Amino acid sequence: MACSASQPAGERRATLSGLPLDPLYYPADAAAPVCAEKLGFPGQFPFTRGIHASMYRGRLWTMRQFAGFGTARETNERYRFLLAAGQTGLSMAFDFPTLMGYDSDHPRCLGEVGRCGVAVSSLADMETVFEDISMGEVSTSMTINGPAAVLLAFYVAAAERQGIDRKKLRGTIQNDILKEYHAQNSWIFPPAPSMRLVVDTFEFCAAELPQWYPISISGYHIREAGATALQELAFTLADGFAYVEAGMERGLDVDAFAPRLSFFFDAHMDFFEEIAKFRAARRIWARRMRDRYKARDPRSWMLRFHTQTAGCSLTAQEPYNNVVRTALEALAAVLGGTQSLHTNSLDESYALPTKEAVQLALRTQQIIAHETGVPAVADPLGGSYYLEDLTDRLEAGAEEVFRKIESLGGMYRAIEDGYFRREIAGSAVRFQREVESGRQVVVGVNRYGSAGEDPIPVLRIDPAVEEAQRGRLAELRARRDAGRVRRSLEGLRAAAGGDRNVMPALIEGAHAGATLGEMVDVLREVFGEYHELDRV
Amino acid sequence: MACSASQPAGERRATLSGLPLDPLYYPADAAAPVCAEKLGFPGQFPFTRGIHASMYRGRLWTMRQFAGFGTARETNERYRFLLAAGQTGLSMAFDFPTLMGYDSDHPRCLGEVGRCGVAVSSLADMETVFEDISMGEVSTSMTINGPAAVLLAFYVAAAERQGIDRKKLRGTIQNDILKEYHAQNSWIFPPAPSMRLVVDTFEFCAAELPQWYPISISGYHIREAGATALQELAFTLADGFAYVEAGMERGLDVDAFAPRLSFFFDAHMDFFEEIAKFRAARRIWARRMRDRYKARDPRSWMLRFHTQTAGCSLTAQEPYNNVVRTALEALAAVLGGTQSLHTNSLDESYALPTKEAVQLALRTQQIIAHETGVPAVADPLGGSYYLEDLTDRLEAGAEEVFRKIESLGGMYRAIEDGYFRREIAGSAVRFQREVESGRQVVVGVNRYGSAGEDPIPVLRIDPAVEEAQRGRLAELRARRDAGRVRRSLEGLRAAAGGDRNVMPALIEGAHAGATLGEMVDVLREVFGEYHELDRV
Repeated sequence: MACSASQPAGERRATLSGLPLDPLYYPADAAAPVCAEKLGFPGQFPFTRGIHASMYRGRLWTMRQFAGFGTARETNERYRFLLAAGQTGLSMAFDFPTLMGYDSDHPRCLGEVGRCGVAVSSLADMETVFEDISMGEVSTSMTINGPAAVLLAFYVAAAERQGIDRKKLRGTIQNDILKEYHAQNSWIFPPAPSMRLVVDTFEFCAAELPQWYPISISGYHIREAGATALQELAFTLADGFAYVEAGMERGLDVDAFAPRLSFFFDAHMDFFEEIAKFRAARRIWARRMRDRYKARDPRSWMLRFHTQTAGCSLTAQEPYNNVVRTALEALAAVLGGTQSLHTNSLDESYALPTKEAVQLALRTQQIIAHETGVPAVADPLGGSYYLEDLTDRLEAGAEEVFRKIESLGGMYRAIEDGYFRREIAGSAVRFQREVESGRQVVVGVNRYGSAGEDPIPVLRIDPAVEEAQRGRLAELRARRDAGRVRRSLEGLRAAAGGDRNVMPALIEGAHAGATLGEMVDVLREVFGEYHELDRV
Repeated sequence: MACSASQPAGERRATLSGLPLDPLYYPADAAAPVCAEKLGFPGQFPFTRGIHASMYRGRLWTMRQFAGFGTARETNERYRFLLAAGQTGLSMAFDFPTLMGYDSDHPRCLGEVGRCGVAVSSLADMETVFEDISMGEVSTSMTINGPAAVLLAFYVAAAERQGIDRKKLRGTIQNDILKEYHAQNSWIFPPAPSMRLVVDTFEFCAAELPQWYPISISGYHIREAGATALQELAFTLADGFAYVEAGMERGLDVDAFAPRLSFFFDAHMDFFEEIAKFRAARRIWARRMRDRYKARDPRSWMLRFHTQTAGCSLTAQEPYNNVVRTALEALAAVLGGTQSLHTNSLDESYALPTKEAVQLALRTQQIIAHETGVPAVADPLGGSYYLEDLTDRLEAGAEEVFRKIESLGGMYRAIEDGYFRREIAGSAVRFQREVESGRQVVVGVNRYGSAGEDPIPVLRIDPAVEEAQRGRLAELRARRDAGRVRRSLEGLRAAAGGDRNVMPALIEGAHAGATLGEMVDVLREVFGEYHELDRV
C-alpha cells in the first residue's frame, strides 16, 4: 500500500494493491462543450460531479444519526454515547407534541411525551439536552418544521447560556413547511404566514448566524410517503425554488441567503437511480440559481444535502436484512456526493433504535469511509454510460414536473389543488400493487420468507418520562419571572402582527422562560391555524 | 414502475421511478478502435464488460453458499435448508482429512473429522450427502484439490446410483493444485504428477461430463494468504495459462477443454479495485487465449468466475459489522460480472456459520438481486473514467508479473524458486504494518473499537461425529466385496503408472466401495509425496 506519511490516518490515496489514485478522473475531452456543460469538474458549475473540488479527500461527510427520545436527560446521554462512538454531528428528533408546538403538559399530549423523540418545551430542556456538549463545537440538525423558529430560539439562547458566540453556531433546522403540506402533515399555520416565518429565519440567520443553515429542504418525507425518486427530486427542488422566490420577495439579496439553503434527500434501494438523482439535483439547482434567479455567488449555485437511508425500505420481517439494505443505500448516498448521512438502524422501522443497533448503523458509515477506498476519488462513477444517461433523464423528468407546477399556477395553487398529494398517493398505490403482485420482490416479505417476524431487543420508553417532564415544566412555571414572560409574549405578538422579524422576540421569550406552547399560541392567535386541505 | 406483464417476476426492467432501462449503455463512439479494442460489448471479445450479452437479465448469478460440516447426514440437512431458503447451487466444504486424502479412521485425523467441513471417505458418504437432492438438477461446487479426481469419481458414481446420466451433471471441482504450492499448502503429490491428474480430469470431462467444469482456478486463497488484488489477478491468470499449456502438451485441442475452465476470485473491501480486477481478468484472458493459444471457439476466450467475499476482511470484534462488509463486497462482485457468489456469514471468520448467519448471508445476495435494480443493466459502471483507468492499470500490472514469471523460467521454476510465496508474504507483512500503524483503519479493531469481542451464537461440532463416522466406515469395510475392491485398486495402479486416464479406474473403485484413503494411497505409491518447498 502506497501511503505517504503526511496523509490523514486511514484515508487512503491508493488502492489496496498500492496503485496511487488521482483525486479525480475525467474524459480526454473534458473541455468539449457538451462535457463542460453537463459535467464540468467537481467544485465547478454545474456541480454534477460534486460541490467541492476535493470532495471526500478534503473532508468526509458528516456522520449524523437522528436521535432523541424520552427526557432531555436521556437524550443527552444518548448524544454523548454517539459522539464517543465517533459520530461527527448531532441530529435531534422531537416528540409529537413538540413538533406540533404543544408543551408536554398540554391535555392533547397524553401518552405522546418523549415517545418518538425528545420533549423540548423550554430553554431549560434545551440546556439539559446539551449539558457537557459544547455547542460551539458540535454541528446540530433539528428536525422541526411548524415551530422551527421557536426551537432555533431555544438553541441560540442555550448556546448563549454556555457563553458561545452566535457566530460560531453550526447546524440546521429543517424548517421546510412546504413538504408538510405535500406529505408530512405537521403544519400549524396556513401556508402564507408559515412562509413568512421561514423567511424570518433566512433573514435572521444571514445577519446573525453566518454558519447556520436556516432550512433543510426535504425530499425525504415526500419519498417516504410513497413518491418515486423522480417525484422526490422534482417536488423538493420546486419547494427550493419557492423558498428562493419568497426570500427575494422579502427584498433579500439572493446571494445573502441562498448559500445557506440546504437539502435533505432519501437514499432508497434503486442503487443507480439514487446516485443519478443526487447528481441531477446538483445540476438542476446550479442552472436555475444562476440563470433564472441570477445568483452570482457560486456558493448560491451549490446544492448541499443531507441524506437518510430509506426507512420505508426496511422490513419488520428478518430485521437483520435491514443492515444489508442500509449499507447499500448508504453507499449510494456517498457515491452521490452527500455532505451528511444518517444510516437507519435495523430496528428503526418500528422502534427507537437500541444502542447496539445505532452503533451498527454508525459503523456502516465508518466502514464505507475507511475500508472501501470509495472516498479517495471524487464522483468515482462519473462517465459511466448508464449513470450519465440516467442523470440526464432524471433532469429532463424533473423539468417536466416544474412545467406542470407552473401550468397549475405555481406552488401555492398546486398545493391547494392537491396536486402533490395526489401524485404521491398514486405512486404509493402503484408500488404497493407491485409488491402485492410479487412483481416487486421484497426479500423476506413476499419472497424467501422464513418464519414471520423475528424478535429483536427493542427500546421501550418508560411511561414515567411523561410525569417527570410535566413535573419539570410545573417547576419552571413556578420559578420564572411571570412579568418578564408576559412582556416577552407581548413583544412577540407585536412582531408577528407587524412586519418585524420574530426571531429576536422568540430569543427574548426563551431567555425569559416562556414555553414553546405559550409562544406558538401567540403565533396561532396572530396567524390562525390551518386545518386541512379541503380539495384533496 | 413500468413492468411488463411478461417479465420474470421480480426482475425489473425499469428504475423504481418507472424510467425504462435498456439492457446496455455504451459510448457514442463504440465502434472507434480504442473502444472496440478495450471494451467491446458484453458477450463479445474482449469481454471486458461481461461474458454474456444480456448478463443478469438473462440469468442471475448462482447463489452458492460454501457449506459442509460434521457427518454426511448433517451436511445433507444443511443443504436441504439452503435450497429451501432459495440458494441456487451447492458448494461442498470438506474436512481436513478428506482434503489431504485420508479416511476418517486414519490415525492422523483424530479430532479433525467433520470439523471444518464434511467427511467424505467413500461413495456411501457422498450418497448420503445428496439424499433427496436430485444430482441431475443441482449444480455442485466441490472445494477439493489434491484428491479432486477421487471426489469427482465419488460424485459421478453417486449420481449413477441416483440413475442420473453423466451428461446432465453440472458443477465444478476446485482441482487447482498450483495455488496450493503458492498459498494454501494442501497438496499431496509433487507438481508434475499433480498436473497430470488435473489434465486427466480435463480430458475425462471433455469426453464424458460436458456440463462439468473440471477446474476452478483460484485466486481466493492467494488473496486470503495476503496477496494484493493485483497479485491475485496476475498469479491466478498465470496459473490458468499453465493449465492451458499442460492440456495442450497432452495433445488436447485447446477448444476441447478451455471452454470448461473456470475461475474463483476474492471480493475484498477496496470497492473499485475489485470491480476493475474482474473486468481486467476477462480482458487479459480473452486476449491471451485468442492471440497466444490460438483458441478459435469464443467460449475458450471467456473467463467465467465464482466469487467469495473476503473472509480475511472480517473481524471477530463487533461481528455484525461483517454483514456490512460482506454486502459491499458482494455488490462489487456483481458489478464485476461474477457468474456465482458465496457471501460469507458474519461468524465465518472463526466458526462454521449457524443457520441464522448463513441465511442472512444468502439474503444479502437476494437483496442485491431483487431490490437494488443492479442486475437490470450489463456492466453498469462501464465508461466510468476512474474505473476504466483502474482496469487498464491492473491489466498493465498483471502483464508485468507475467513477464517476471517468464524471466524466472516459467511456472514450475517460479514455484521452486519460492517467488509466489515470497511475494505474497511481503504483501501480507506490509498490510499488517499498515493496520498496526493505524494508517489502514479496520473499524471496530484499530479505530472506533467499543468493548472487545462480542459473544454471538457459534455452531459447535459434536465430538460424537468422529465416532459415528468411524463406525460407518468400519461397517462399509466389513460389507463390501473385498475382491472387487482389490481388483479396482490394481486397475488404478496400472492406469496411474502408465499413461491411461485414471478417471475410469477411480469411478470403478468408488462403485466397488474402495475408500478415499485407499485410492489416494495407491497414487501416493506411484507418484510419491511432496513434503516441502525447500528453497522458501
